[in-house]
Amino acid sequence: MKGPTFILSHPQLGENIGAAARVMLNFGLTDLRLVAPRDGWPNRKAEAMAAGADEVLKGARVFETIEEAVGDLGLIFATTGRDRLMSKRIATPGEAVVELASEVGERRKCGVLFGAERTGLTNEEVILSDAILSIPSNEDFSSLNLAQSVAVVAYEWWRGTKEKPNFKVPAKFRRANPASKEDLIGFFEHIERELDRSEFLFPPAKRAAMVQNMRNMWQRAGLTYQEVQTLRGMVRSLTGGKKRRKKDQG
Amino acid sequence: MKGPTFILSHPQLGENIGAAARVMLNFGLTDLRLVAPRDGWPNRKAEAMAAGADEVLKGARVFETIEEAVGDLGLIFATTGRDRLMSKRIATPGEAVVELASEVGERRKCGVLFGAERTGLTNEEVILSDAILSIPSNEDFSSLNLAQSVAVVAYEWWRGTKEKPNFKVPAKFRRANPASKEDLIGFFEHIERELDRSEFLFPPAKRAAMVQNMRNMWQRAGLTYQEVQTLRGMVRSLTGGKKRRKKDQG
Repeated sequence: MKGPTFILSHPQLGENIGAAARVMLNFGLTDLRLVAPRDGWPNRKAEAMAAGADEVLKGARVFETIEEAVGDLGLIFATTGRDRLMSKRIATPGEAVVELASEVGERRKCGVLFGAERTGLTNEEVILSDAILSIPSNEDFSSLNLAQSVAVVAYEWWRGTKEKPNFKVPAKFRRANPASKEDLIGFFEHIERELDRSEFLFPPAKRAAMVQNMRNMWQRAGLTYQEVQTLRGMVRSLTGGKKRRKKDQG
Repeated sequence: MKGPTFILSHPQLGENIGAAARVMLNFGLTDLRLVAPRDGWPNRKAEAMAAGADEVLKGARVFETIEEAVGDLGLIFATTGRDRLMSKRIATPGEAVVELASEVGERRKCGVLFGAERTGLTNEEVILSDAILSIPSNEDFSSLNLAQSVAVVAYEWWRGTKEKPNFKVPAKFRRANPASKEDLIGFFEHIERELDRSEFLFPPAKRAAMVQNMRNMWQRAGLTYQEVQTLRGMVRSLTGGKKRRKKDQG
C-alpha cells in the first residue's frame, strides 16, 4: 500500500477519469476506484487522457455503489467545497494528508472521495466519510474541475510525504567549476582597464562607486571559470583586441 | 495587480486553456496570456472548459512571440520538470510563491511560464526566465498535464498567500527595481549585434549555443534596471560608440 485510495463517485467524463489517473501517478498514487461511471468502463477518452498511466487506469476497480467501493477502507475524507452543516470535521488538504499518511504508515487502508462533476458528493456520501477535505479557494468562484481537485489532493500527498523539508539543489544543477576569485579579479581588472581607456569610468570622483557596483553585479551572477573566459573574450572582441594589438606592435 | 501573470506558450488544446483559466480563478488569479495558441483565438472548447471563468478567459491577451508576452514583466519562473543543465536556480512551487508574492507586494509585475503540452518550454523560453519552478513528482512518471501544472501552481499561490494572514517575505528575496524582460531583451540584442560586428559570435554553427550561454549568464545575475543601463553604456563605450557614430555620419 503506497498511499490512500482515490474514489470517484459517478464520474461523467472519461477525460476527467483519465486526467485523474495521470495526476495520481504523477504524485505516486496508484489505487483508483470508480463508482458507476456514466459512460461505462473501459472508456477510450479516459485512456487517451491518462497518457500512459496504465498502472492506475487498468488497475481501476469499478463498483455499483459507494458502499461497496469503500467497504474495506477505514478513514475516509470527502472532498467538497460546499457547506454541509453536518457537524463534520473539516480539514485542509495538508491536514488531511497528515492523517492519511499516518494511516498508511500503520498499514491501514484509507481513502479520499470525489463527487460527480456537476453535482458533487451526495449527502449520503459525505455522511459515510469521517471528515471533510475542503480545498481552500476563491469564494466567488469556488467550484473546481474534478480532475483539478484530484490534482490538488494528489500534489499535497506528494508534498506532505515525499518532499524533504530542506529542499536542496540537486547535485547536477550545482555549478560545475566555479570561477576562482583570482579568475574573477583578473576579469575585473581587464574590463576596468578597458573602461578606463574608453572613458566610461568618468569622472574620477565617481570611479570607485562605479567599479564597486559593477563588481557586485558580476559576483552575483555566480560565474563559472568558463564564463569568465567568455566574458574576457567578449571584451577583447568588442575593443577590437586583435586588430589593436597588431597596430600597437606594428 | 492581484497576483502573478500566467503565460501559456503555444498551447495546443483549447480544453487545457479553458481548464487553466478556470483553476486560475478558483485560486484568485486573473491575468492569463497566450503565445500563439495552435487553434487560434477565441476558442470554443476553451470557453466550454472554463465553466464561467470569463473574467480570465475574455481578458486573456494573445501574443505572437514569447518576447512580446513577457516584455513588461520582471521576475519570471519557468515551469519545467526537465533537466536543463543551465545553472539556473530551482524553486519548489512553495518557494516560487514566496518570491512572487514579494514582487506583487511591491507592485511589480511578475509571471509564471508554462510550455506547450507535448514539448514543454523551449530552451530559449527557459533562458528568458529568472529561475525554474519545478513541481516535485514521481520520477518514473513525471510529466504533468498542462492544466494540472497550472492547477498546482495556482493552488500554491492561494495556499501560500491567502491561508496565512501574516505572510512575510524573507529579506534576501527582495530586489530593488528589477529589469523588465523588455529591458533585458534590448540589452541582449544590443550586445549580440556588437559581438556579431566584432566577429566574436563565430563560426555561425556555434552562434546559437554561444548566445544561449551568454543570455543564461546575464539572466542569472538578476539584473536591476539601472544595471542593464550600465551594461549598455559599457558596451557602447567599449565599441567606441560616440566616435563610430560620428564617423558613420561623416
